[in-house]
Amino acid sequence: MAEPVKGPLDGLRVIDLTRVLSGPFCTMILGDLGADVIKIEPPKGDPVRGQGTMTDGHSGYFAGFNRNKRSVVLDLYSDAGKAVLRRLLADADVLVENFRPGTLDKLGLDETTLKDLNPRLIVASVNGYGSTGPYVDRPAFDFIAQAMSGFMGVNGEPEGQPMRAAPPISDLIAGIYAATGILAAVIGRQKTGQGQAVEVAMVNGLVSLMAYLSSEYFATDKVPARTGNDHPLVYPYGLFTCSDGQIAVANSHDQILTRFLETLDLGWIMTDPRYDTNPKRMAAREELRDLIDSRMAGKTRDHWLSVLNAAGVPCGIVQNLQQVFSDPQIAAQQMVIEAPWQDGPALKVLGFPIKLNGTPCAVHRPVPRLGGGTTEVLTEAGFDQDQIAALVQDGTIGTD
Amino acid sequence: MAEPVKGPLDGLRVIDLTRVLSGPFCTMILGDLGADVIKIEPPKGDPVRGQGTMTDGHSGYFAGFNRNKRSVVLDLYSDAGKAVLRRLLADADVLVENFRPGTLDKLGLDETTLKDLNPRLIVASVNGYGSTGPYVDRPAFDFIAQAMSGFMGVNGEPEGQPMRAAPPISDLIAGIYAATGILAAVIGRQKTGQGQAVEVAMVNGLVSLMAYLSSEYFATDKVPARTGNDHPLVYPYGLFTCSDGQIAVANSHDQILTRFLETLDLGWIMTDPRYDTNPKRMAAREELRDLIDSRMAGKTRDHWLSVLNAAGVPCGIVQNLQQVFSDPQIAAQQMVIEAPWQDGPALKVLGFPIKLNGTPCAVHRPVPRLGGGTTEVLTEAGFDQDQIAALVQDGTIGTD
Repeated sequence: MAEPVKGPLDGLRVIDLTRVLSGPFCTMILGDLGADVIKIEPPKGDPVRGQGTMTDGHSGYFAGFNRNKRSVVLDLYSDAGKAVLRRLLADADVLVENFRPGTLDKLGLDETTLKDLNPRLIVASVNGYGSTGPYVDRPAFDFIAQAMSGFMGVNGEPEGQPMRAAPPISDLIAGIYAATGILAAVIGRQKTGQGQAVEVAMVNGLVSLMAYLSSEYFATDKVPARTGNDHPLVYPYGLFTCSDGQIAVANSHDQILTRFLETLDLGWIMTDPRYDTNPKRMAAREELRDLIDSRMAGKTRDHWLSVLNAAGVPCGIVQNLQQVFSDPQIAAQQMVIEAPWQDGPALKVLGFPIKLNGTPCAVHRPVPRLGGGTTEVLTEAGFDQDQIAALVQDGTIGTD
Repeated sequence: MAEPVKGPLDGLRVIDLTRVLSGPFCTMILGDLGADVIKIEPPKGDPVRGQGTMTDGHSGYFAGFNRNKRSVVLDLYSDAGKAVLRRLLADADVLVENFRPGTLDKLGLDETTLKDLNPRLIVASVNGYGSTGPYVDRPAFDFIAQAMSGFMGVNGEPEGQPMRAAPPISDLIAGIYAATGILAAVIGRQKTGQGQAVEVAMVNGLVSLMAYLSSEYFATDKVPARTGNDHPLVYPYGLFTCSDGQIAVANSHDQILTRFLETLDLGWIMTDPRYDTNPKRMAAREELRDLIDSRMAGKTRDHWLSVLNAAGVPCGIVQNLQQVFSDPQIAAQQMVIEAPWQDGPALKVLGFPIKLNGTPCAVHRPVPRLGGGTTEVLTEAGFDQDQIAALVQDGTIGTD
């Protein structure tokens, strides 16, 4: 039998103290890439195990963030539990946590202690605002990070409310950045022999995505206006109405706009003295929208997507999740896969956005049952059967 | 003089064929972490050099995506230019490109050629839809990726339009994922000695962030409704109005909600038979909003932020960019820094979201002048002065 292909992080040992969203997303990315992720859970488990709609008693929300991990139930608030954790950390490459700043110290795992225990350990923290500064003690939450970072402030209709994104993107982006930082630290360790601390704050992660909105602010001191789905500087651009619904069209510059209008038999617009510059077109939005929609209305979305894409005009449907998950491209890209639960059903989960052709991401391990890896992990760490039984007996660890 | 601290990726050589947004963001992250990024530009340069508001003739938009790179102007469409590129690739660790799928092949850099040239080379591609599947030839653009991925469809008011995010997040997220995949491949290469292809599509990147919205869809087959700034399952939650403006409050579960209401002297709501369950509170949104806003209206945002944060209730202001960039926490986290241009002014740019305490991210190199690293990079690659002069003479490379 051929050796199974293992991910590029095969052999990297991650001790994962995180729960809920940001941290588990980070460690799932590491697990998808082949790392050995040991999810330390309190006796009641990561609260997400009980959240979302259950399928045969199993949370799809939990499955979506926790494939490729082994679960160990460990009481971190007892001395015996702390001793077990220290033993796991002595032999690990990475510790990831998403407590509030200062909690690791309270668990007896301050920087000096960890360095003495394992100087090669990379200690990664995901939090709301960062571990220094005036807001260090504030509780964090995705909605608040979206508000405080400026992200909500630039989204939404000009006359409407600032608008959050529905997905918890500040958690998720912090998780991806943390994975990036951890891997950089692993590479750096080859030269120094030393681990280091990696920290990503949810607010900082979103601030880092402000792109040209921030550079324009720095250059002009002007706060950017909300522009809804329209482009702040270019028209026509946005949503247009076909016979059976809307499509999004991104005429990002004149060359593409010319192709767009010619495809609609409206090529004359580009040379008409009323519309032959972008400022004139911006000023004549309503007239142009009517002209374009009147052409669009004669055919279906599928028609326009086909001819416009063929003409090199970026366009697409505003898909709802039913459409996304039945889209042939999403299927071709395997963006929906199945992850089995340990001793449970296989549930649909999102696929891997990082495609590697040599050692691809894969479901190397199932979604773990609460504590389902306890005996295995403790045995690997050198505990014998009697010691494990004693730890179960006194409540330090859970049973498998 | 002490040796300067170098980033964890010091010594990693990246040949960067990318332009505009997604690819340059990826390679900037690698450069921030210490990689040696060689930005190959066409004679006219990355188009972003001419975009956005100029400060002393320098684009802040370009500065925001291109610190920590050296620029080499190279005509990739000439045989001599291709030969120079192959020489640079022979000695590199990573090639990054964000052309449409197939362009690398047209440049004579198909997979087999690259493998023969340098089997250790990691070849990373960022594109719109991926390099396989029915949409492979479609032009991509951030707005379209936001539409096709389902991201827009879940954002916005229930009765309003699906709403894009103003920042080009599909580009940016693909860039971060590509950096993550590249670093994983670097780590994997230590075991195999072989490079591999890394690919991230903008649509896939956004799909991967659908989190519990996707797991609920998979479990129920119900398309999630847009809920604006309100939480789909919990009330009170969202924006509330103080004497001088709104604040965002995330009462994500009953324990936090109790603290919130008690801070407002509305603790009785939790035990009032009209409001003592979440379903009842969801049904009584209008009454509860009026009750809460009537208390909020008596004090300023600063007052409520202070007392609510102290009570452990996640809350914050919906900040605009002026507020973000004068926020003391953002300053403490150094999320605005200066990056000098090579032979030009220092411009404000966004700081580093990945904080490392041992070998931190830094501005290791300035924002490059077009072609400003040509002689240096070619000399390092073994070209002598006469050869460089001849390449300048025939237009293969630009002058410094």
